[in-house]
Amino acid sequence: MVPSAGADRVGRVRERMAVEGVDVLCLSHGADLPWLTGYRAMPLERLTVLVLPAAGEPVLVVPRLEAPRVSPQADLFTVLAWDDGDDPIDLVASLVRRSVRSPDADAGAGPVVAVSDRAWAASLLALQSALPGVTWRPSSSVTAPVRAVKDVGEIAALRAAAAAADRVAVVLQAGEVPLVGRRESDVSGDLGDLLLAEGHQQVNFAIVGSGPNAASPHHEPGARIVGPDETVVCDFGGALALGGDAGAVGYCSDITRTVYTGTPPAEIAECYEVLRAAQQAGVVAARAGVAAEAVDRATRAVIDDAGYGEHFWHRTGHGIGIEEHEDPYLVEGNGVLLEVGNAFSVEPGIYVTGRFGMRLEDIVVIGEDGEPERLNRADHAMVALGP
Amino acid sequence: MVPSAGADRVGRVRERMAVEGVDVLCLSHGADLPWLTGYRAMPLERLTVLVLPAAGEPVLVVPRLEAPRVSPQADLFTVLAWDDGDDPIDLVASLVRRSVRSPDADAGAGPVVAVSDRAWAASLLALQSALPGVTWRPSSSVTAPVRAVKDVGEIAALRAAAAAADRVAVVLQAGEVPLVGRRESDVSGDLGDLLLAEGHQQVNFAIVGSGPNAASPHHEPGARIVGPDETVVCDFGGALALGGDAGAVGYCSDITRTVYTGTPPAEIAECYEVLRAAQQAGVVAARAGVAAEAVDRATRAVIDDAGYGEHFWHRTGHGIGIEEHEDPYLVEGNGVLLEVGNAFSVEPGIYVTGRFGMRLEDIVVIGEDGEPERLNRADHAMVALGP
Repeated sequence: MVPSAGADRVGRVRERMAVEGVDVLCLSHGADLPWLTGYRAMPLERLTVLVLPAAGEPVLVVPRLEAPRVSPQADLFTVLAWDDGDDPIDLVASLVRRSVRSPDADAGAGPVVAVSDRAWAASLLALQSALPGVTWRPSSSVTAPVRAVKDVGEIAALRAAAAAADRVAVVLQAGEVPLVGRRESDVSGDLGDLLLAEGHQQVNFAIVGSGPNAASPHHEPGARIVGPDETVVCDFGGALALGGDAGAVGYCSDITRTVYTGTPPAEIAECYEVLRAAQQAGVVAARAGVAAEAVDRATRAVIDDAGYGEHFWHRTGHGIGIEEHEDPYLVEGNGVLLEVGNAFSVEPGIYVTGRFGMRLEDIVVIGEDGEPERLNRADHAMVALGP
Repeated sequence: MVPSAGADRVGRVRERMAVEGVDVLCLSHGADLPWLTGYRAMPLERLTVLVLPAAGEPVLVVPRLEAPRVSPQADLFTVLAWDDGDDPIDLVASLVRRSVRSPDADAGAGPVVAVSDRAWAASLLALQSALPGVTWRPSSSVTAPVRAVKDVGEIAALRAAAAAADRVAVVLQAGEVPLVGRRESDVSGDLGDLLLAEGHQQVNFAIVGSGPNAASPHHEPGARIVGPDETVVCDFGGALALGGDAGAVGYCSDITRTVYTGTPPAEIAECYEVLRAAQQAGVVAARAGVAAEAVDRATRAVIDDAGYGEHFWHRTGHGIGIEEHEDPYLVEGNGVLLEVGNAFSVEPGIYVTGRFGMRLEDIVVIGEDGEPERLNRADHAMVALGP
């Protein structure tokens, strides 16, 4: 996080709260809290909630035993630790009540509280029970449009993560990760190790789908042995924090390259050229002021025109940042307009069930000039690797 | 999962639904779904929900692109895949409506639907909006008491995971993991590697807290260099699936041993003997028919009596299974009675802020005879390791 990014973000979030009519934000599990404060709630059952009122001091309610992990950014929030045996829901509810005890809230239709999209349902049910009369919203209604516009520090972090993933792709495309005769899961392990070696602090996934498995976009690499004369879809990414501090908030990489273990036959080579043209069309279409769904239509049109439409049955891409998948989603029905600072994947695929699959993915950002820039530059060809 | 465990579990869950007056269970993120079906929803934004009515066929609503990952247990559920651009909330809502269209539900106070504790709040808010008139409960109200009683296959998996963690502890206590002069984070990495080498498919955590950091129970291992003449708290665990299949559902290990880098001075050695006696008292107290909070009181009494009460400020333990932390929690205020098949940690600690800390943890199961059995057998002494 760049210096004072936190205070700037709180300001931008509060502007958005005013627009959305949200009185209090309650941030727990998920990426909003670390994005805003640098602190991530542990994915465990003891409740952590940052109570951020539209005005007044934010308070982080945190289990006593995790309190020593909190290094608050100066002036961003105060810490209120609770002990095992206390009821943290009561604490949060009373902070919310205190925050909305305003003339407006009393007169109006009741307070509106936005809670982290990924807060646990059990926590929300308990809060709903403790705070009757509150209208609840997902926090993304406030934070998603703010987080979708990356600041300079975030773009730099995404750029560094993409460059690190590119270096792994280059090693793969150079044939330095043995494929034929090895289990998909072992190849996946190698890609993960390379992500770490190239500077990621965390591996998020390393999909390796070979032969017919390449036709399953979210294939879990398993015991299948990679054979000769197959497409192998390698889709991998992790999180990288600039400065290399494991405790810092990392930004995500996500890249897909498809390689061929042999000399691709004409059908596969032609199909890949369709995919490459589709991905290029998507990237070119992704400019400021264009609807997110228009990028999806751009990739799909190329694949449809070539007769492969039925074999491309997922959205074209997803936003990326502190989360692997976040706004904006490039999917039919999403009319939101892309804007400067958006970062997202463009990743069409063609999947012929039972036979083969292929996908090509780059991370793209929209620059100050409103034009798309690919952050991934590893060879976009389907590299042929001998057995 | 042992053969046909899934069908047996569905039966036990439905018995409990009847007791709790729950008409439909909606399982999404979290451990209930893999525990029941062997399938785990990906921790991503595309919605996966198993709709399990009190009677009638369960349906797994799953994103099309994850559908190939689903290998349903025969007869457990049918798969309903949704496409990007569809609204999966609509699908789930219509399945729920279909399930509760019974005379009882129409006549009564409205249907009761239980949703995974760890389902995302955003999904619950969308379902609440799509299903007005439904009363919502956390799924743990149904599943937690069922899951807390482990079956034979689960006890075997916990035993194997504990034995693997013990082997790592033995390596640590033998002085074969270099400590002094190394970063905590590097020691943590070694412990994680050893967990994998000993058969875990996944590392959940490997806390290494040295010197003053040992006084922070959930310390994140960092750049601090382990020094001579310090306590070092090592708390580590992962998930291990019997059979070693990375895609299978693993059960968790969790062990803490405290070592000393030198010869412990009298104060530390005496303090550790208090801790050891407290942990022993907790294990002995943990019998069928005893309240969970009584185990907490048993460990606390020993530490209080020795004058260290203010330095032990977390609960005594947590249940363990497919989740690192689950019911039963050994904490003041939890009057639930322990029973045969419960599995949990017993892990008192003593933390003197700014100076040192220590914790001792074993996993304990309650056997058929109602008596506690430690699954961890690595040396319970504070092993002194030379620098």
